[in-house]
Amino acid sequence: MTGRAVDSALLSPVWAGTGAPLSDEAWLAAMLEVEAALAGAQAELGVVPEAAARVIADVAASARLDVVDIAIRSREAANPVVALVRELTAAVAAVDPDAADHVHRGGTSQDVLDSAAMLLAARTLRRVDADLVECARALADLADGHRGTVLAGRTLTQHAVPITFGLKAAGWLAGVLDASDRVRRTAADLPAQLGGAAGTLAAYEEHAGERGHGVRLVRHFAARLGLREPDAPWHGRRTPLLDLGWALTAVTGALGKIGLDVQGMSRTEVGEVAEPPADGRGGSSAMPQKRNPVLATLLVSAARTVPAQALVLGQAMLAEDERAPGAWHSEWQPLREALRTTAGAARTAVTLLDGLEVFPARMRANLELTGGAIVAERLTVVLAPRLGKAAAKELLGRISREAAAGDRSFGDLLREVPELDAAEVDDLLDPRHYLGASGDLVDRVLTRRRDHG
Amino acid sequence: MTGRAVDSALLSPVWAGTGAPLSDEAWLAAMLEVEAALAGAQAELGVVPEAAARVIADVAASARLDVVDIAIRSREAANPVVALVRELTAAVAAVDPDAADHVHRGGTSQDVLDSAAMLLAARTLRRVDADLVECARALADLADGHRGTVLAGRTLTQHAVPITFGLKAAGWLAGVLDASDRVRRTAADLPAQLGGAAGTLAAYEEHAGERGHGVRLVRHFAARLGLREPDAPWHGRRTPLLDLGWALTAVTGALGKIGLDVQGMSRTEVGEVAEPPADGRGGSSAMPQKRNPVLATLLVSAARTVPAQALVLGQAMLAEDERAPGAWHSEWQPLREALRTTAGAARTAVTLLDGLEVFPARMRANLELTGGAIVAERLTVVLAPRLGKAAAKELLGRISREAAAGDRSFGDLLREVPELDAAEVDDLLDPRHYLGASGDLVDRVLTRRRDHG
Amino acid sequence: MTGRAVDSALLSPVWAGTGAPLSDEAWLAAMLEVEAALAGAQAELGVVPEAAARVIADVAASARLDVVDIAIRSREAANPVVALVRELTAAVAAVDPDAADHVHRGGTSQDVLDSAAMLLAARTLRRVDADLVECARALADLADGHRGTVLAGRTLTQHAVPITFGLKAAGWLAGVLDASDRVRRTAADLPAQLGGAAGTLAAYEEHAGERGHGVRLVRHFAARLGLREPDAPWHGRRTPLLDLGWALTAVTGALGKIGLDVQGMSRTEVGEVAEPPADGRGGSSAMPQKRNPVLATLLVSAARTVPAQALVLGQAMLAEDERAPGAWHSEWQPLREALRTTAGAARTAVTLLDGLEVFPARMRANLELTGGAIVAERLTVVLAPRLGKAAAKELLGRISREAAAGDRSFGDLLREVPELDAAEVDDLLDPRHYLGASGDLVDRVLTRRRDHG
Amino acid sequence: MTGRAVDSALLSPVWAGTGAPLSDEAWLAAMLEVEAALAGAQAELGVVPEAAARVIADVAASARLDVVDIAIRSREAANPVVALVRELTAAVAAVDPDAADHVHRGGTSQDVLDSAAMLLAARTLRRVDADLVECARALADLADGHRGTVLAGRTLTQHAVPITFGLKAAGWLAGVLDASDRVRRTAADLPAQLGGAAGTLAAYEEHAGERGHGVRLVRHFAARLGLREPDAPWHGRRTPLLDLGWALTAVTGALGKIGLDVQGMSRTEVGEVAEPPADGRGGSSAMPQKRNPVLATLLVSAARTVPAQALVLGQAMLAEDERAPGAWHSEWQPLREALRTTAGAARTAVTLLDGLEVFPARMRANLELTGGAIVAERLTVVLAPRLGKAAAKELLGRISREAAAGDRSFGDLLREVPELDAAEVDDLLDPRHYLGASGDLVDRVLTRRRDHG
Repeated sequence: MTGRAVDSALLSPVWAGTGAPLSDEAWLAAMLEVEAALAGAQAELGVVPEAAARVIADVAASARLDVVDIAIRSREAANPVVALVRELTAAVAAVDPDAADHVHRGGTSQDVLDSAAMLLAARTLRRVDADLVECARALADLADGHRGTVLAGRTLTQHAVPITFGLKAAGWLAGVLDASDRVRRTAADLPAQLGGAAGTLAAYEEHAGERGHGVRLVRHFAARLGLREPDAPWHGRRTPLLDLGWALTAVTGALGKIGLDVQGMSRTEVGEVAEPPADGRGGSSAMPQKRNPVLATLLVSAARTVPAQALVLGQAMLAEDERAPGAWHSEWQPLREALRTTAGAARTAVTLLDGLEVFPARMRANLELTGGAIVAERLTVVLAPRLGKAAAKELLGRISREAAAGDRSFGDLLREVPELDAAEVDDLLDPRHYLGASGDLVDRVLTRRRDHG
Repeated sequence: MTGRAVDSALLSPVWAGTGAPLSDEAWLAAMLEVEAALAGAQAELGVVPEAAARVIADVAASARLDVVDIAIRSREAANPVVALVRELTAAVAAVDPDAADHVHRGGTSQDVLDSAAMLLAARTLRRVDADLVECARALADLADGHRGTVLAGRTLTQHAVPITFGLKAAGWLAGVLDASDRVRRTAADLPAQLGGAAGTLAAYEEHAGERGHGVRLVRHFAARLGLREPDAPWHGRRTPLLDLGWALTAVTGALGKIGLDVQGMSRTEVGEVAEPPADGRGGSSAMPQKRNPVLATLLVSAARTVPAQALVLGQAMLAEDERAPGAWHSEWQPLREALRTTAGAARTAVTLLDGLEVFPARMRANLELTGGAIVAERLTVVLAPRLGKAAAKELLGRISREAAAGDRSFGDLLREVPELDAAEVDDLLDPRHYLGASGDLVDRVLTRRRDHG
Repeated sequence: MTGRAVDSALLSPVWAGTGAPLSDEAWLAAMLEVEAALAGAQAELGVVPEAAARVIADVAASARLDVVDIAIRSREAANPVVALVRELTAAVAAVDPDAADHVHRGGTSQDVLDSAAMLLAARTLRRVDADLVECARALADLADGHRGTVLAGRTLTQHAVPITFGLKAAGWLAGVLDASDRVRRTAADLPAQLGGAAGTLAAYEEHAGERGHGVRLVRHFAARLGLREPDAPWHGRRTPLLDLGWALTAVTGALGKIGLDVQGMSRTEVGEVAEPPADGRGGSSAMPQKRNPVLATLLVSAARTVPAQALVLGQAMLAEDERAPGAWHSEWQPLREALRTTAGAARTAVTLLDGLEVFPARMRANLELTGGAIVAERLTVVLAPRLGKAAAKELLGRISREAAAGDRSFGDLLREVPELDAAEVDDLLDPRHYLGASGDLVDRVLTRRRDHG
Repeated sequence: MTGRAVDSALLSPVWAGTGAPLSDEAWLAAMLEVEAALAGAQAELGVVPEAAARVIADVAASARLDVVDIAIRSREAANPVVALVRELTAAVAAVDPDAADHVHRGGTSQDVLDSAAMLLAARTLRRVDADLVECARALADLADGHRGTVLAGRTLTQHAVPITFGLKAAGWLAGVLDASDRVRRTAADLPAQLGGAAGTLAAYEEHAGERGHGVRLVRHFAARLGLREPDAPWHGRRTPLLDLGWALTAVTGALGKIGLDVQGMSRTEVGEVAEPPADGRGGSSAMPQKRNPVLATLLVSAARTVPAQALVLGQAMLAEDERAPGAWHSEWQPLREALRTTAGAARTAVTLLDGLEVFPARMRANLELTGGAIVAERLTVVLAPRLGKAAAKELLGRISREAAAGDRSFGDLLREVPELDAAEVDDLLDPRHYLGASGDLVDRVLTRRRDHG
């Protein structure tokens, strides 16, 4: 059958099987739910008979429409609502011909599609946030449990100074909390859409035959959908789409950063963490020794694609007139892709973080790779008052270069510096003694997590 | 069933029903085709028994695999090939257990997925190009047929100087030819992918037990798939993806520009063109008078989304190591979306251009809206030698402002300029006499079209 | 002189001359300000002598560093801070050699550059917000003053139903308020950056020789800069950059939408608004009749570029390790470009909106172009109960087509419908009687504006 | 001085001091060069006196215009050409009043700015290509010199199978050749722009008073500028901008991939390569032991920003009418940024590759980290015929897991497999014996390089 397309995430493993209901059928169902809410709100205000609203709601909830057919017919109007309304009207008429007159009364395609999009977005954001809360819990455990686990801090790819894995996890956690904040703020702010043909609510009012009906209808309609009541229709003012792109990018960005770090720490040469083992996970058909960081890879791939979808959503603000020919139409598919990719990423991150394997011994071994040079910064601070800042720097630079080039370690060479005595050198070289405020910072982020809820 | 997702373009009307075979099932089929080509090439070189290769090809062509199941299991390896190979091997084994040993022999997931992607891309580009050729034919007819149809040239939204609709159509045509050039160049250049685990072809050679086998195998494999033989494996060098993004953006950009112009010329106030009428097309359920430029809108929406997909493809060049953890994985879905959106746009453009309605009388009426001022540039040229350049400019500026403000037209005021006589003014004001090289330019583009084939 | 580059916005007229201080010299000054704040905060906590901090502050405020030289030397460290610190240290030493030891004590390049970026961003956002408040005031005047000015609502480029210019202005206003909300939220949330080499604050604590000093220092440092105290260093967690991209896109998106509408309404065929006249503005050297909507064009160009800069900022969240090699470095120039483009757009919008010319007569004339069909939706509502919904729709569709094709207007044909009497038709055709909740919606947005402050 | 902005690449170290002449002054000079070429072409065709053309060329070459003033005045017309023409005309008039009449005769702003942009782009592309050729030479030396240097191939961050550094360098080289191909193709294809007010060349013809003059003028004009003669004006058909974005992304993508790999191989734990040492390069003020891969970081930052600029250029294809209000204006700054970032990246890459330090001993040491498991794929191939494919896989999986978990290496465990004898195991474990077609592939790419020239 031409036009038949079954997309089951074959090319998007990040959300395969993770279940965020955003398929074509879910969108159809959401649009039908919006039609029911409209009739319901109109019934509350006496414009549509209660019985008709009930029939519409029943049929909307149970109708089995042919999504492929509607999709093809969506080319006629450049959106699927016109065909959908026709099908819904026929289905209602089959049950109750009078009720059919009240379907989509005063409505505009964009009222239905925008409201459905907000509904699906709000539900997806709530799922995402629940998963972020799970991630935060797992990360808090890592941060707390590893506040004494020392490893090399890395900057511009090189060992810099010692840090703790607790601090690293706290940094990841803070990113997840940032993302959750933005998800919650956005979810709470998503508005219903109701404006009629050009945003005046005129047809709704004409049906009601009553001034003031329009804004009351919007309030009831929004309440039924659990969405925010907007100040005015926003057919041509696409801030909610921009906000969604922002919140979703915050999520995939924060999780992608974790993924990137897990990948780096999983490298064969580094080996400081590993993904939670599971049957088949990370394997290669040809290379039996392989254990690839596949969950992290999925997170990184999500973080590479969602910003591009968000870009399209942000650019859709450039929408002309009362309803735009093209900007609006460009939003739908990127929004769906961004929502389900993000939902998949959040679910994937829970799996990754819940069972992340941490190898403190390997961290410790890596820390010693530079033979003590990882605390060179500390030595600069300590020696400056004794030798003068410039001379201290010069000395340590020379020792560093000598250690890098030759066969004596930074620590060994340091022991020859007359301004330092042996016991002092041991203390100075101990990475556990140069962790600065790591513990304080872990505490601050853990406190933030508790307050976040 | 959780994870079941039916995507039938409900949110992408631009390709709904236009039939480019890029569904999950089509990707699965293409990957199976690649496995068959690999076994076939190995058989040609004597590494796999001919009979086994035949069985593999037969099973690959007829297997009914569960795409949703494979998608879900793709999370284990972060790509669908591992699961696919397992299923294919089982299906082959069911027919001929010995042949099963020869499935995916020496192969790597990325060899299969990349080659399948190139196969689908090449086929889609050929469909796209065929549609661009149709568009070019329709545009050539418009350019040729309307070389004398005068209308207002518009720059920065304002009437500038007269042009012909033939020239406008020639400009659109040149854009379509530019796009077709880029599509053809890219289609001809898409390489097969074969490198094995890390691009050395080592397992393929180990199976063959023969030096030099690797590059020979690549040649045979590419030939079977009708793809270019690459200089070397390109697992981590993603130029073909960049090129695809470029070619697809060229198409949606050129067609989107046409869409944008059709929209502008369709405005109620302008009314110079209309989309080809068809039952239901462009209608609104609530507003019976409406005839929306829906095909143009679909073209514009495509041109707003494809560049973002192309961006992800271009950014995937930033791919580390021999095979990248994330960059590669981020390509698949944007590539599919870009391909089918572009294919839908090309098909949509054929429909739009084949029956575009053109209203020369309305063009002529609009041309007169400025009461002659549209040829003010010409007057500047003519009067400069008579009055001096500065004085001429000053005079025409004053006349323009007076005409804009008052109730006398630019032409009427011009007739009072003593340096011009009445007959001359009539000629000067005739927009048909100020078309410059419009005809020559139309001819040049028509010639280019004929050479393009 | 090699490397000398004078960029004065020649290619970015939207911010030319609008004065947001974001030049290289402004960035240098901000970095010096950060160094002074660091020394000052350390002095407050007794780690640096008050006198030294004062000298550092004085020199930082008055030093004339060679920005081109520092830029070239920035290649050595891949950032300009190392060279800057060397210059500053030398300049301080020239005044007070002892104070020089206290320059950048414990500091890291990223602490300085990030804090300077937040400082400049916060200041720019405040300027932007002040301009948005001006825009909102101008728009409120338009919305209030034109609540009775009727014009055609346009959807998918076609006349749909009547609206008021007051409602249109209210929609623009709501967009500006949305943008201002996001700008304020972001400005209030921009954090100082202080973490030291790998985010542990270790060198700062080592200098102080005191546990707990690190987080206290951050608090004092942030307070001096007027920035938020962060929960923890964010060298590798780039939420603030994402937020900036979001807020700036909100601004250029909202203003770009206004620009797009002004362009559409300025079209020669439409002529409903014009930009405020000013000497030379909108002129063309060759076409004296031209009055191009140049301010609107600048707004649109800003809205086309800022989302791409924001994209880079959002993608920089994908930053590996404690400090990332490349992601961080990719932020600076896009951030500057986005900030100054947005600041220029906000200032440009004030100019545009403060003097926007509105032509109600032209709006009225355009409204009549469809001979009454613009209220066809209303007729559908009115006739449905009389004729049945389907028959009403059918009748109005027929009348619309007949009017579009022939020489009798929609209104004239309507008068022949037996179910309508003449007086009723006059009322029904009056666009002023089909404005729905336009007035209520204007009031709601005006109230929001008053509450916004 | 308000509006004064000195940008000297402080925020873009990648091009600081690398000298691609793309400053505001360079753009001004290029526009003046275009004006001179126009007058010169008109003189060749007898429309402008030779003497006047000479004066115009002389003044254009020597005029010292105030770029900041022109930038500010560019707000009036939304582009800098109108102000520039006024200044040039005055400067010419000061020398020869009659010649002043021939400045910009028949010209349109976009003719001048587009042609200047193509001129600068063509010159920059030629510099970029020269640097790519240098890179290719350095990479060919690496590929050839290291064809026997064995190291771990890495996929999804894990050791996969052995490769040679020669093959890796050949892969980088192939990317550079891909980029150079695209740069050359694009540079050769950049067209001059000449169309007049709305692309009809009418004013040029009116001045000449001769049919056919228009297209002849374009030919002469393009020839003088060394640009391609276009089929027709392309004011509203922006393929050349798309192409530029594509070619520039190809360059930064190919070089960014090299940068990413150099970063990964420079990691403290990996240490297989290092950037060429230079005084001050890669140092950190606080951490004397540091040697950061700063050149690679600059390459990566370029590859993260240029695709976003290219995106804006591609999106500018969505340009309405004969000349677009906003799309065109959005191109200039992204084009400049992309050009100079790319030019800086190409120059930076030469520095990086010319002196890249390679540490074969470290590569060899890393290769042994998995105790032989890196050749597990080979063992699968070898053991399959002896044990059956499934049993072989099972065995090797078990050995891999045991080696990873315990204290006996993969190789040691392998020696206990009865189906393998000791001598065979030694051979099988030798990574130099499992390099597949690495040498052949190096040869292929080196041959391509020689043919490339």
